[in-house]
Amino acid sequence: MGPQLAPVSLASIQEPVREELDQVFTELGRIIAAEFPLIDTVNQHLLHLRGKMFRPTLLLLTAQATGNTQSRRSTLAAVVELIHLATLIHDDSVDHSVLRRGQPTVNALFSHQIAVIMGDYLYSRAIIELVGLDGLEPLRVMSRVTNEMTVGEMREITAHDVLDFSQDDYDQLIDAKTASLMSGACEVGTLGADPAYREPMRRFGRSLGMAFQIVDDLLDYTSSEDVTGKPAGLDLREHKITLPLIAALPVMDDRERAAVSALMEDPTPSDGSIGEVIAITAERGGIEAAQVRAEEFSALAEAELEALPACRARDTLLDCISYVVERQS
Amino acid sequence: MGPQLAPVSLASIQEPVREELDQVFTELGRIIAAEFPLIDTVNQHLLHLRGKMFRPTLLLLTAQATGNTQSRRSTLAAVVELIHLATLIHDDSVDHSVLRRGQPTVNALFSHQIAVIMGDYLYSRAIIELVGLDGLEPLRVMSRVTNEMTVGEMREITAHDVLDFSQDDYDQLIDAKTASLMSGACEVGTLGADPAYREPMRRFGRSLGMAFQIVDDLLDYTSSEDVTGKPAGLDLREHKITLPLIAALPVMDDRERAAVSALMEDPTPSDGSIGEVIAITAERGGIEAAQVRAEEFSALAEAELEALPACRARDTLLDCISYVVERQS
Repeated sequence: MGPQLAPVSLASIQEPVREELDQVFTELGRIIAAEFPLIDTVNQHLLHLRGKMFRPTLLLLTAQATGNTQSRRSTLAAVVELIHLATLIHDDSVDHSVLRRGQPTVNALFSHQIAVIMGDYLYSRAIIELVGLDGLEPLRVMSRVTNEMTVGEMREITAHDVLDFSQDDYDQLIDAKTASLMSGACEVGTLGADPAYREPMRRFGRSLGMAFQIVDDLLDYTSSEDVTGKPAGLDLREHKITLPLIAALPVMDDRERAAVSALMEDPTPSDGSIGEVIAITAERGGIEAAQVRAEEFSALAEAELEALPACRARDTLLDCISYVVERQS
Repeated sequence: MGPQLAPVSLASIQEPVREELDQVFTELGRIIAAEFPLIDTVNQHLLHLRGKMFRPTLLLLTAQATGNTQSRRSTLAAVVELIHLATLIHDDSVDHSVLRRGQPTVNALFSHQIAVIMGDYLYSRAIIELVGLDGLEPLRVMSRVTNEMTVGEMREITAHDVLDFSQDDYDQLIDAKTASLMSGACEVGTLGADPAYREPMRRFGRSLGMAFQIVDDLLDYTSSEDVTGKPAGLDLREHKITLPLIAALPVMDDRERAAVSALMEDPTPSDGSIGEVIAITAERGGIEAAQVRAEEFSALAEAELEALPACRARDTLLDCISYVVERQS
């Protein structure tokens, strides 16, 4: 990755697929539509939130870059977003999160029960839609990805022992939790194009997803609630061990390590102790190390783009890497 | 349904498919196998419980009765049981149930978080398995059924207004919650056989499932914890409105109806008030009315069996109806 002149915006990477993204949004509404009033109410809440649609964007750009003119790609992109949404709803429910993108979560606004059922509802709708497309390949990819994500979630909720959670454990966690779906989005984007693109794009999505999650975890150390829509240090507050801390831990002295352990053992850590661990992690190079690692994955992603013919969509996929690394929320 | 000389046992309806059911159990273990230790631990708990395998039994008997020699039917039967299992885990989690078949639920034994994730894990494994079978029909049936079940669950958690919950609402609820999966099991059992069997067997499973759930709801009024593995009156305690109460309500007098309303408005109803409402419901014919309704669905199910050639499996499917209606747990 060379230096960038100006930050890449979400709008700029979505520009080449703007119209298709509107179709994706329409498709999403069609796929989840329900006659039962409460489901419809939750659906409207979800559609109103309208996320960044980053995964559909990846799918559509990959399709464009590989010359894939498959007519159902907006449906596939909607399904990818739907699976993302279903996963977020269950994750928020599992984590008891009250905010997502600065908005109330389904479990907070409705109930925990409704969140569990809605996640199941949305996911089964996604599967029905994939079955309706005929052809098993998108289903094969997406069912494998969804299963990987559940394993990632299980890794996450059990990863609380800071001294026994290695960088390798972390890599496996974020691979399953985040990179799998981005990888799946990019892979599905090539279905219908020359099969030679499938593996490179799968790997591109994987590396991009790894960088994406590392940056996400970095933002928890470096950003403020105003920008991200969630309080800084939230991961530490919830005893989530991410790369900055993992990288800094081996070079901490005993006093610093004791501060980390104390935070991890405290069910309700104070803002002060969270601030202290963030400061220690920064001083001990944890943030820098995570940035370097994100850059490494960015470089791997960039290398995969060599497989594509020179075209605007390829350039935009390159911009996607910059967007992921530079974003502030 | 004529009078039965002796109650039909689970063992007797499973006798014609005994060996296949052992294969189904082996398949189930293979499909859910996980490398991640915690998932494996929960899996072992689930396999140890080994339910009644009633839905796989229906699938295998239907296959036998329709002359379906499809070699993957034990896998399909395992997938049906797996989807049932995933649904139970989420349902128990949503309902905060602590016991199932007299054994601790996943949410009680592990945690609510783990129950949500495990349900997702098992369901996505089921989908992966169906994708691996090639051929979209089982997937088409099972994804539709799963989605129906989520709508049923949503109907259930929102059905607390006893004066505004009709028999029609109840029918829709149990159709989605219970009959859909039994219907799906029977339908999938015919895939590979003469297509003329598909609709009658789908309808057979639907009617059988309706009878099954009505009897389940009846047992909550008539049975004891020793037999069912859960305390009697549990539905009333949880403010679940089922057919006996719905049927009795219109003929209750004001005092009786007030007792029902008081129970429904009490967050923690006493054993005394539950016993009273059970007694009122029985006196006002609610139990008898529900029994009649179960018999009606039994007759509908029996009529569908006419579509099958005379054979031992058809006789056993007839016994399945008796089993459903006569069972005490």
